[in-house]
Amino acid sequence: MRDVAIIGAGSTKFGELWGASFRAIGIEAGARAMQDANLGGDEVDAIYIGNMSAGRFINQQHIDALIADYTGMATNHVPTTRVEAGGASGGVAFRQAVMAVASGLHDIVIVGGAEKMTDMDDDSINSVLNATSDAEWEAGMGLTLPSLYAIIAQRLMAEGIATREEIASCAVNSHFHGAMNPDAQFRKAVSLDTVLHAGPVAEPLTMFDCAPISDGSAAVILCPLEEAKKHTDNYVKVCSSMQASDTLALFQRESITHFNATRVAAQQAYQAAHITAADIDVAEVHDDYTVAGLMALQDLGFWKEGEAGRALLEGQTRFDAGKTAINTSGGLKAKGYPIGAAGLSQIVELTQQLTNRAGPRQVRNAKYGLAQSTGGTGSAVTVTVLEAM
Amino acid sequence: MRDVAIIGAGSTKFGELWGASFRAIGIEAGARAMQDANLGGDEVDAIYIGNMSAGRFINQQHIDALIADYTGMATNHVPTTRVEAGGASGGVAFRQAVMAVASGLHDIVIVGGAEKMTDMDDDSINSVLNATSDAEWEAGMGLTLPSLYAIIAQRLMAEGIATREEIASCAVNSHFHGAMNPDAQFRKAVSLDTVLHAGPVAEPLTMFDCAPISDGSAAVILCPLEEAKKHTDNYVKVCSSMQASDTLALFQRESITHFNATRVAAQQAYQAAHITAADIDVAEVHDDYTVAGLMALQDLGFWKEGEAGRALLEGQTRFDAGKTAINTSGGLKAKGYPIGAAGLSQIVELTQQLTNRAGPRQVRNAKYGLAQSTGGTGSAVTVTVLEAM
Repeated sequence: MRDVAIIGAGSTKFGELWGASFRAIGIEAGARAMQDANLGGDEVDAIYIGNMSAGRFINQQHIDALIADYTGMATNHVPTTRVEAGGASGGVAFRQAVMAVASGLHDIVIVGGAEKMTDMDDDSINSVLNATSDAEWEAGMGLTLPSLYAIIAQRLMAEGIATREEIASCAVNSHFHGAMNPDAQFRKAVSLDTVLHAGPVAEPLTMFDCAPISDGSAAVILCPLEEAKKHTDNYVKVCSSMQASDTLALFQRESITHFNATRVAAQQAYQAAHITAADIDVAEVHDDYTVAGLMALQDLGFWKEGEAGRALLEGQTRFDAGKTAINTSGGLKAKGYPIGAAGLSQIVELTQQLTNRAGPRQVRNAKYGLAQSTGGTGSAVTVTVLEAM
Repeated sequence: MRDVAIIGAGSTKFGELWGASFRAIGIEAGARAMQDANLGGDEVDAIYIGNMSAGRFINQQHIDALIADYTGMATNHVPTTRVEAGGASGGVAFRQAVMAVASGLHDIVIVGGAEKMTDMDDDSINSVLNATSDAEWEAGMGLTLPSLYAIIAQRLMAEGIATREEIASCAVNSHFHGAMNPDAQFRKAVSLDTVLHAGPVAEPLTMFDCAPISDGSAAVILCPLEEAKKHTDNYVKVCSSMQASDTLALFQRESITHFNATRVAAQQAYQAAHITAADIDVAEVHDDYTVAGLMALQDLGFWKEGEAGRALLEGQTRFDAGKTAINTSGGLKAKGYPIGAAGLSQIVELTQQLTNRAGPRQVRNAKYGLAQSTGGTGSAVTVTVLEAM
């Protein structure tokens, strides 16, 4: 298989984009990524899209054709493929696109993620989100995504793996970085006290432990590594992109204080990249809930079990702390969480970091970046390793 | 890239499966395909699933994890990927799975399609189906899928490309074959008169011009061609699997009497397989509406424009007519149309035909088979060519 490079990256602002339709949002990030890669539309061989539920959010299925159409690429009949894996939709789309280039089937592939969530009322949105848990054995019994993550948080606290303050500090870290990201939904740092005393959602999680409802899209352009230099000097290498599954329902796991799918995908990704967790300079992890972000730092091997919380609390995860910088984009919590776009937004941030274009939140001398994208309660996870060239 | 083989195939019965849940249906076809390939679950490296809208039909997103879980493969954390492209969901899933094996990334891949549609009331089902057209410019204006295809039928008739009788005869052909398929939803031959005088749906289309609402699943197992013989003698070669897009809305096309996406995908598929349309002995085409089935025969090059209708009317498309046998499974019209499963059901039928296991509807000396799967009104099309070994 061929080595693959990212030669362009782009993102819309994330937030409540009342003035923009799904189709407008969906093509904006792609257009920015194309511009970043100095490409014209007729050079694209295939499109991949991560989207969780346009079918329910905006009553539009078949957004593969929609995106091909509204980017003008239907004129060339460019094959366009939508994938869905709950919150990991973007991560899985990225992996399929990497495979399309690595296999030699396609040369220039654009992979984007998009979601337009705010056109729906809150109750309906929650019903869609809950459908990423087990509809029969979790959602059907009254459980919601926040309550499932609250159960995980309670378990982490009961087993002494993390304190409430440590869990909450994941949001403090993400907001600290989000304040420096012009595309972030929330550009304001928050204190630990603010997180702890915000409106309750599911004990112990408060409003500030949960990523927001957002609109937005993000996209990157892939090509064979050996062709990258023809297009741009700002390219990064895709070292590996791995994916693992786990049971849909939480109660079927032997332990809920870690996600096996993250561990498996990470192990495979490190092995394929010939590195270890210690080599990663900057990582974007799936902090749809603070507790998920904290667990990811342990499952990815950045900190040992029981130590990630303190690292977050002490600010060791900040872009300038000299350790593995975590969620410099603001993460899902502060940059925002348009579901299908989340996995691609992570890749966009890492591309900026590894090409020294991350502005005030630039991690110095970043060589390796890692993105972890999660669906449901760790039921599907992708882990991608990128390398600066 | 490596050559790829199909080493196992299985299908549930299609129909109104009131007694079976989505998860039960989803794993049944896979289990049959595994058995057909003499495989155990721990030998599977990856799973692909075509599904159109479990999120709306049964309120369950993230069915990648659901299937990994309920097949027991989440225990091995097998990567599982769901793709959606309206009616072409199964065809696109198949193509991604072929790519996964061809690239060398995975060795044994199971690709299935499943849909559980009948748990929903008819109005809601139609709302989901309409979401595969353009929600803003077609469905939002009151157009439905049947009415869009009725417009196409009117145009074909106005331009003298097909008569009403010729269009209707597509259903006669599919029912003729469906009567011989034990897995078919409708196992009864129908006369031209029955189709013409059935209850009206959208002028000129009647109830018998439209494929039914169905539950069901279908699956096949892929592996590298050079490994196929280790598993079974009943394997076929995947010569090519191509995909093309077109505008989402019908009004944006220069002509609506053919589907450019079918023509483009077919041309690419023939070229990659080093054959022409004349070499195809048996084909499964996407007859969700009779008029779509008729057009496919022309766009795929089996008959010239204006001649496919007469071929259907005269029975030249039957399994024993000595020409290209069309929809020997019963097609979407008679075998049934559980949307995400349709593209895989076609591949299952071709696998049976090319390994001489199609029973009373066996096409003699079939060497090449072709499957065409369509989303929306030809907005996404896959064309796959298989070869008997």
